[in-house]
Amino acid sequence: MTHVTTNVRELQPLVFHLTNQVVMNFSANGLLAFGGSPIMAKEIKEVSDIAAISNSVLINIGTATEHEIEAMITAGKAANEKGIPVVLDPVGVAASPFRQESIRRLLEDIQFTAIKGNAGEMAHLVEVPWQTKGVESIDDDNNKTADIAGLVASKYDTIAVVTGEVDVICQGNQIKENETGHTMLTKITGAGCLLGSILAACLATNRDSFDAIYEGIQFYGKAAQNAANRSDGNGTGTFIPHFIDALSKKED
Amino acid sequence: MTHVTTNVRELQPLVFHLTNQVVMNFSANGLLAFGGSPIMAKEIKEVSDIAAISNSVLINIGTATEHEIEAMITAGKAANEKGIPVVLDPVGVAASPFRQESIRRLLEDIQFTAIKGNAGEMAHLVEVPWQTKGVESIDDDNNKTADIAGLVASKYDTIAVVTGEVDVICQGNQIKENETGHTMLTKITGAGCLLGSILAACLATNRDSFDAIYEGIQFYGKAAQNAANRSDGNGTGTFIPHFIDALSKKED
Amino acid sequence: MTHVTTNVRELQPLVFHLTNQVVMNFSANGLLAFGGSPIMAKEIKEVSDIAAISNSVLINIGTATEHEIEAMITAGKAANEKGIPVVLDPVGVAASPFRQESIRRLLEDIQFTAIKGNAGEMAHLVEVPWQTKGVESIDDDNNKTADIAGLVASKYDTIAVVTGEVDVICQGNQIKENETGHTMLTKITGAGCLLGSILAACLATNRDSFDAIYEGIQFYGKAAQNAANRSDGNGTGTFIPHFIDALSKKED
Repeated sequence: MTHVTTNVRELQPLVFHLTNQVVMNFSANGLLAFGGSPIMAKEIKEVSDIAAISNSVLINIGTATEHEIEAMITAGKAANEKGIPVVLDPVGVAASPFRQESIRRLLEDIQFTAIKGNAGEMAHLVEVPWQTKGVESIDDDNNKTADIAGLVASKYDTIAVVTGEVDVICQGNQIKENETGHTMLTKITGAGCLLGSILAACLATNRDSFDAIYEGIQFYGKAAQNAANRSDGNGTGTFIPHFIDALSKKED
Repeated sequence: MTHVTTNVRELQPLVFHLTNQVVMNFSANGLLAFGGSPIMAKEIKEVSDIAAISNSVLINIGTATEHEIEAMITAGKAANEKGIPVVLDPVGVAASPFRQESIRRLLEDIQFTAIKGNAGEMAHLVEVPWQTKGVESIDDDNNKTADIAGLVASKYDTIAVVTGEVDVICQGNQIKENETGHTMLTKITGAGCLLGSILAACLATNRDSFDAIYEGIQFYGKAAQNAANRSDGNGTGTFIPHFIDALSKKED
Repeated sequence: MTHVTTNVRELQPLVFHLTNQVVMNFSANGLLAFGGSPIMAKEIKEVSDIAAISNSVLINIGTATEHEIEAMITAGKAANEKGIPVVLDPVGVAASPFRQESIRRLLEDIQFTAIKGNAGEMAHLVEVPWQTKGVESIDDDNNKTADIAGLVASKYDTIAVVTGEVDVICQGNQIKENETGHTMLTKITGAGCLLGSILAACLATNRDSFDAIYEGIQFYGKAAQNAANRSDGNGTGTFIPHFIDALSKKED
């Protein structure tokens, strides 16, 4: 059976990003390397049209304004109507009441195919107390992480992807852990955000969604490992170009 | 006679960018390497003032909101009044009615010195049917590309630059093809957008506009070739830094 | 006594950026390499909440809209109320009346712990005539730079950091010069902006503010020198990754 990377590279899915300004360039280049095709827009008057021509949609609230949240809701609804997969990344949801209220509205109005976040963000979605620092999650614990993944998957009828030292992917009764990855990913901005783009591309293939996400996240972590080897641990500056390169390689 | 790169490096033209959020950093660093000086702004209250102190203006609608389109129109008009060159990059114009209407207004209110886009975008400006995917152009054909360049140049009394495997530059009765370039440029985000910045810098010199653009696009493609050689085909991640480097070198 | 880099890496201060779109990714990765933790937001409804959980706040007006200026004022006031350090970077203040008026309001409503800018920007704050080009300062003169630093420090009761070939740091009767640095920093976008992030991180430590800033700017310049050595002068494209790397190293 083909690997999801092969499927993505054949389809070259158009992934509509409504994402934060910090990571736009990195996400676009990372997705292109992986084999997808990024498109970004934020004017509410065009987001339904862009969603309708896309193969999947990513909603990431990192630096969103109120106006942009409205555009995200409009885009997500349009994607739902067309049966296009939608991924949510609730970046830093615990950091302010505005983000909490925005996420509440997004979750109420849109059916997400997958929700991806660190343990702190995901815990917030199911009202489990968790320590966070800005947009970072503190004190991850694998057992608690699996619980949270299960709660999010069940409450929102979605594929929950809780990222951390070990990633947990859960949908219904299925649960899998992924141990690929590298600490360098925690030292660059947007590693989680780009993963959202990658998973959105994987969901655009005709593979089973759970498998596609599992293979996608496994590949992502291995790419980070390969990039860390190639950049010799000099720092994140030289790691990033090697990481983008690694995303364009075959699975191993 | 001096090469346009020499002229740009002597003048260090201030190029006012009203451009999309995905490519701002890449465009700024690329233009700086080439010898220009970028300035970016989007508040409508200041765009006329910024245009008035600039040597050329680039308008790129990639992620524009309605408010930003208004700022672009204001900036373009101010540039026209002062006789400052203005370049248009109609990114993904076919992707939504909002973009189509925005471009229609920009073309109605502003006289552009040059319009640069891929075949799909440029075809749209002259109502020639063309297959596109998001912001990408599909099924380019050199003969049809030349026709489209001619139609755009004539309809908008401008220098039309149609990018593709072979680029076509047309103004009045003049038409030239450029064959420099590298497929790596199609695999990174913003290669077309940065070319817009480079051409805007070239137009700010006192060279003949058609020649300046031709030399600029030729240099840009060679820089990509040189960068591809230096990065050994490892991927786009390592290509990009070498490409920025190559933009700062002398023509060869 | 520990170096400020050690303090920053122990504290991992959360630095709230209200900064320009051109440099967001570069600033985030640079600050992470240095040991800080970036958070960015611009919706006025959440900026007080984000400021309140942060260790310091950076306000950089590079591409600000009127709406964003309001958010900056709100965030800065919230930081002042909580006693959180606030840094101002008045990017290109001389370029338009809108920027001048925005900076006037920011300076009226917020007490800044430090104000950092090039000589042209800082001269503008104390109404000393200075030649500028877009966001760049022309014709720097060390003696005049020291005068301007003194005037800004006194007028705004702040630590004035005037960047240039020689940087001048002034607070009350204290004045110091820093001669570390490299011309490569003048050829990339956002070198000054990232310095603002670094200084905001340094101010979040419990070190004396003047010393923290002096050590921070000294380290920053040395990191640029180290990066220039490692990238062999090929260009800014390969310099940037090495510079990010260098920001994660120990002081030497």
